Amino acid sequence: MSNSTDELFKNVIAHAKEYGFVFPSSEIYDGLSAVYDYGQNGAELKNNLKTYWWKAMVQMNDNIVGIDSAIFMHPKIWKASGHVDGFSDPMIDNKDSNKRYRADQLLEDQIAKYDVEGKTDLAEELQLEMDNALKADNLPRLKELIIQHKILCPLSKTANWTDVRQFNLMFSTQMGAVTEDSDVIYLRPETAQGIFVNYLNVQKSGRMKIPFGIAQIGKAFRNEVIARQFIIRMREFEQMEMQFFVRPGTQAEWFDKWKQARLNWHLALGTDLNKYRFHEHTKLAHYADAAFDIEFDFPFGFKEVEGIHSRTDFDLSQHQKFSGKKLQYFDPELDENGKPYGNYVPYVIETSIGLDRMFLLTMINAFEEEDLSTEEKQDSRTVLRLHPCLAPVKAAIFPLTKKDGLPEKAREIMDNLKTDFNLQYEEKDAIGKRYRRQDAIGTPFCITVDHQTLEDNTVTIRYRDTMQQERVAADDLQKIIGDMVSWKNVLKQD
Amino acid sequence: MSNSTDELFKNVIAHAKEYGFVFPSSEIYDGLSAVYDYGQNGAELKNNLKTYWWKAMVQMNDNIVGIDSAIFMHPKIWKASGHVDGFSDPMIDNKDSNKRYRADQLLEDQIAKYDVEGKTDLAEELQLEMDNALKADNLPRLKELIIQHKILCPLSKTANWTDVRQFNLMFSTQMGAVTEDSDVIYLRPETAQGIFVNYLNVQKSGRMKIPFGIAQIGKAFRNEVIARQFIIRMREFEQMEMQFFVRPGTQAEWFDKWKQARLNWHLALGTDLNKYRFHEHTKLAHYADAAFDIEFDFPFGFKEVEGIHSRTDFDLSQHQKFSGKKLQYFDPELDENGKPYGNYVPYVIETSIGLDRMFLLTMINAFEEEDLSTEEKQDSRTVLRLHPCLAPVKAAIFPLTKKDGLPEKAREIMDNLKTDFNLQYEEKDAIGKRYRRQDAIGTPFCITVDHQTLEDNTVTIRYRDTMQQERVAADDLQKIIGDMVSWKNVLKQD
Repeated sequence: MSNSTDELFKNVIAHAKEYGFVFPSSEIYDGLSAVYDYGQNGAELKNNLKTYWWKAMVQMNDNIVGIDSAIFMHPKIWKASGHVDGFSDPMIDNKDSNKRYRADQLLEDQIAKYDVEGKTDLAEELQLEMDNALKADNLPRLKELIIQHKILCPLSKTANWTDVRQFNLMFSTQMGAVTEDSDVIYLRPETAQGIFVNYLNVQKSGRMKIPFGIAQIGKAFRNEVIARQFIIRMREFEQMEMQFFVRPGTQAEWFDKWKQARLNWHLALGTDLNKYRFHEHTKLAHYADAAFDIEFDFPFGFKEVEGIHSRTDFDLSQHQKFSGKKLQYFDPELDENGKPYGNYVPYVIETSIGLDRMFLLTMINAFEEEDLSTEEKQDSRTVLRLHPCLAPVKAAIFPLTKKDGLPEKAREIMDNLKTDFNLQYEEKDAIGKRYRRQDAIGTPFCITVDHQTLEDNTVTIRYRDTMQQERVAADDLQKIIGDMVSWKNVLKQD
Repeated sequence: MSNSTDELFKNVIAHAKEYGFVFPSSEIYDGLSAVYDYGQNGAELKNNLKTYWWKAMVQMNDNIVGIDSAIFMHPKIWKASGHVDGFSDPMIDNKDSNKRYRADQLLEDQIAKYDVEGKTDLAEELQLEMDNALKADNLPRLKELIIQHKILCPLSKTANWTDVRQFNLMFSTQMGAVTEDSDVIYLRPETAQGIFVNYLNVQKSGRMKIPFGIAQIGKAFRNEVIARQFIIRMREFEQMEMQFFVRPGTQAEWFDKWKQARLNWHLALGTDLNKYRFHEHTKLAHYADAAFDIEFDFPFGFKEVEGIHSRTDFDLSQHQKFSGKKLQYFDPELDENGKPYGNYVPYVIETSIGLDRMFLLTMINAFEEEDLSTEEKQDSRTVLRLHPCLAPVKAAIFPLTKKDGLPEKAREIMDNLKTDFNLQYEEKDAIGKRYRRQDAIGTPFCITVDHQTLEDNTVTIRYRDTMQQERVAADDLQKIIGDMVSWKNVLKQD
């Protein structure tokens, strides 16, 4: 990445910590690798992103419902889904440094090195060889390539490598009292399976008719070997997933619909379309018959934020097989021959978004170091241009000074508004300084209570984006703020 | 518990499953012990309880902020908090059945048996002996009591017992790529420590001044040996905790304030005060100088829903010691001698509520099988009298019939309301049957669109609790529903 984008990313990370958005987990204990905590402003922003997604998916679509399934699930579920056998990375150890690496990552680094050195032919050849080995799950071949291209351990600088082995990415733990007997269970690596195993309970208790969807927001865990890029790849993260159950044969049509609907969800926040692109998977997962990513233009390049996958009937069929329970749907509607479609295992379109990536995207997209210099003086501000719906604090209330009853009046105005909005009260420092602090956390409105307020009950409202100020009646504040932060501004009828 | 309360509890559990509130986890795989999933109506109710708590704690108090810290934390944290060494149950194995039991539970069962047999003296004596042994952490004495009172394994019917040992309740897993090297980490058994280790980051980045609070909602995990009573004691559960940081010496005053404020939070939902009681802890945990539970009258007796604890400076001091980082606060305010209070480790008042228990409380309290019989005919309905703020579905929209453009008109009215409220559309079955289905999930309003609607744009609104019906203008629905479901109805200024 270029210097300026590298700089931007660093600045966003520093800003996120300084203003209470994201802290490294367990920081006083020198941190825990690839785990992060959301601070007081981050928790609000994250909650607002969840609310936006939940409302757009569940509230706006009367054929989609939301559930909240547990992180702990029966271990057989991960056998059925393929995660016990297939959810792993090829790893190799260096015997001198005792360090473990992802074999494909070592090769990728070598390819990048060839590219930098202008050895394009070698780079392309190695890429092809590696892709073939990965596709064929040929672990010995991966090792051969590492030896052949003289890849050394960055620490020991030797090529004294072990064989390549698969390393499962699921975290495991033991449940039950008797250690010897207790079941090994996994922390779910995705929320989707919690939807599939509840499909029948939801369909029956909710009297759902196909097509219908089940949505869920929740934590997932992956023991990533190389976790990096701040909250882009974490070991503990949060997903917002929706599985849409359709009649077999109609999946292509629904896939296209959801692809567009999900992009629209992103764009409704006002983000520039040019920051997004679709990426089609050429190598499809074993369960999929189509897959697109929605990618965002991060400072370090376009990167997946959300995936839309046509998962066929793979998961439900597997659970049918492994659980021995029928997971069919009886479709009473009539086909072109006038016969009911009858019993079938539904096909599934999945939309899956990484909440933490969406959070980072939102921070990066909103972050601006704005030059406010005039001929007279140098000036700048850091402003988070968050959509008002997403802003952690909707308005800040300032008494101009700490005396003459202004704090009391400001409190009174605040009390009238605080059942509706998350507000902040500040009385310290000059007004200009207070404005800048609110700009830095993305507060769309600052309201100043001054001596005139005591006379005519008007206040100054200052807008974050334009920095314009306006005199308005205190009684109008609820409507002014309410109109701007209303979810109606982003919830669109599909 | 008596037959009728036993019956009530069973009916609530059955109802929760039938109507999509709570499903046993992994049910198609015959379930996972002491783990449950929230279905489509349960997820909404649970979210509404979270929202109510978050708004009441964070939005209504400008000196309380909320965070969202990770489940994974540095393992030293649990050493500092005392969980690695002290968070355990005394267990004993029977060598013939290979079954493991909680030693104190075996003794409790024996005491109950003595009571039933009228041997009150023996019961009291054993209770006293057991309490003393537990207090002194005297594990050999627990075994002696088991032998002495001839307690047999319920399975093998023998007294061939092992020694009593401590069994830690924390789930552990391994993080990192190299299995031999990787760190053992724990799934947090409480969310509170996530607040303590972030205390300094939040205080500084949020410029918080004492007294102030940090709130958090999140999952916690305990490997309970005997998990039981539906969602009362689960291995994976959710907490809503708030730690309030105060000047040493003021903790008693703040303790009383929070005790009352938390009870008020419960009562604002309209629950009968007689259903609640305070229970004072006589045996205090090592970190506490006062502790009260808020108990609710469940069908199986009064049981803790929430705890208010005066935790002193124990946790912050421990983290200061174990992390080597200063966790002090500089208090610039002046004491009675005109000197600043200066640097100190704050004292902490904690309010900690079990979200799942609160969910169960809400379901039980709302559940009614109402007799509607008249002289002419037998009739009844099952109704969930949930506070409208908590209801999963705010209103249901019914076209009277499926023809004459009524479904289209109903959809049009729904589209006007659905950005504001979670709604349900139903056109199947007679109106009466549809009313009953909505009663069963606690929907406060049903709106029927009929032929007159096409003429004058009025609809019938039917109220869940009174079953009264009224003709109102469709344009007034937003205000009628909005007023009833507004959070303002439950958010009180302290």
